[in-house]
Amino acid sequence: MSIAYFNGSFLPKDDIKISPDDRGFLFADGIYEVVRWYEGFFYDMPGHMARLKRSLKEIRLSWPESETFPAVANELIIRNNLKNIPSLIYLQVTRGAAKRSHAFPGPEVHPTVYAFARGFHPEKEIIAAGINVILRKDTRWSRCDIKSVSLLPNILSFQEARDLNCQECVYVRDGIITECAHSNMFFVINGVIYTHPESENILSGITRKNILRIVKEAGLKLIEKPVAENKLNEISEAFITNTSFEIAPVISINEIITGDGHPGPLTNAIREKFDEEIRSLRG
Amino acid sequence: MSIAYFNGSFLPKDDIKISPDDRGFLFADGIYEVVRWYEGFFYDMPGHMARLKRSLKEIRLSWPESETFPAVANELIIRNNLKNIPSLIYLQVTRGAAKRSHAFPGPEVHPTVYAFARGFHPEKEIIAAGINVILRKDTRWSRCDIKSVSLLPNILSFQEARDLNCQECVYVRDGIITECAHSNMFFVINGVIYTHPESENILSGITRKNILRIVKEAGLKLIEKPVAENKLNEISEAFITNTSFEIAPVISINEIITGDGHPGPLTNAIREKFDEEIRSLRG
Repeated sequence: MSIAYFNGSFLPKDDIKISPDDRGFLFADGIYEVVRWYEGFFYDMPGHMARLKRSLKEIRLSWPESETFPAVANELIIRNNLKNIPSLIYLQVTRGAAKRSHAFPGPEVHPTVYAFARGFHPEKEIIAAGINVILRKDTRWSRCDIKSVSLLPNILSFQEARDLNCQECVYVRDGIITECAHSNMFFVINGVIYTHPESENILSGITRKNILRIVKEAGLKLIEKPVAENKLNEISEAFITNTSFEIAPVISINEIITGDGHPGPLTNAIREKFDEEIRSLRG
Repeated sequence: MSIAYFNGSFLPKDDIKISPDDRGFLFADGIYEVVRWYEGFFYDMPGHMARLKRSLKEIRLSWPESETFPAVANELIIRNNLKNIPSLIYLQVTRGAAKRSHAFPGPEVHPTVYAFARGFHPEKEIIAAGINVILRKDTRWSRCDIKSVSLLPNILSFQEARDLNCQECVYVRDGIITECAHSNMFFVINGVIYTHPESENILSGITRKNILRIVKEAGLKLIEKPVAENKLNEISEAFITNTSFEIAPVISINEIITGDGHPGPLTNAIREKFDEEIRSLRG
């Protein structure tokens, strides 16, 4: 039986019920985080904590107990016997339950805090072989830097990718590649790695940030500059990054083969460095 | 005790609980409608039904029993003793509860259908006096024509309006006035009424549609053409329309007085015609 966290208590997940007045349900008025458990440690918990607090602040949502999250995550791993299993912790915080009205509840209500842990099987073979992606108009709002649960555009475009047997949807806004439905995007052009800089048009991914650091430490050349859609014919490699995929080579975009159709040498080198770091953190 | 509707049953509202796996809660993967009850009839139920079906279709959500909605709405009025009270029916349909994954659930699950009725007090004095609004960048996604619960941008900008003692937030996208956080926008320039045409940038409001018809029937001049932000100094009147406000004159935008600071003559004429129609429908 899965044990989850709800408003201060650990409960069987099936016993957790959300009020239909919850502003998460009625208005997507909430934010979330997904943290990876590597059989012994959480990946960059300080990075996730910083982003969590930023998201809360940006939507003006107060969760006074936010500092408890690492302990909650740890407890979820223990209570669900996931210590030795690759897992994800999901956390969602919404503006609580109140009579439906666009305005924030007055008087303020306590936020709804929900978290669960889930073992998962990293899709190692799929990732090693490389993934196929589609390219679509970025229909999302203009504050993609906030990790909000207002995810309907992501859902619809991701499902479009799935319908075409692809593993991700890459977004184009005003001719510029921003990021993907649930990952960040990297390209290699003439031996230089490019990724969209932090802005309101992308989510600052935790894996993305760590890849930037790893790439810098390895002395590879990386520029945080967006790639225009009309430059895609110049790319030799592409890859995406996120918490569950880590780094996944992209071997085709809209059915057009990337490079030679195999994971590229720089992508593989970065994957190797990432794996090395995980091994050393594992000790 | 309030009686609401949940997945085929009428239940005390407090007994209705949503699964934390509901895609409405996790992803804003759902749509909604709000219908006005005028102590004897629902306002333009066919209009709401058409929009409901369109929203479902646009997000690829199947609710096989959607035709039951008018009967459900009626039953909610009766069971809550609202027959003689101005009321709103709220309906929300989400893609159901399933293990969290961006992709649509496979196999498909039954949608979550939730509806409640609520008596309300139309803010007649506030509306008669006219409202103050703020103007903000339209941060919403590019499919505002879908009445989705992905409403976080609306929430944040509406709250900003409230913080400034205003009653609505008007949006500007690329220099063009689109609509408001939960209403449509109309302007009068040189005796001609303007409103943004139907497009992916506005929600096709039921009240908006009926105002277009009423205005046409009255022989007033209306053009469905957007007004640019830099034309605001030319407006003599402004008003918003939605289900609960009906028609509300706007007397200031970002603290700049509209016309002479009082509800304008065309706005009042349209309000009068709308009221007349309600009276005749009431019989």
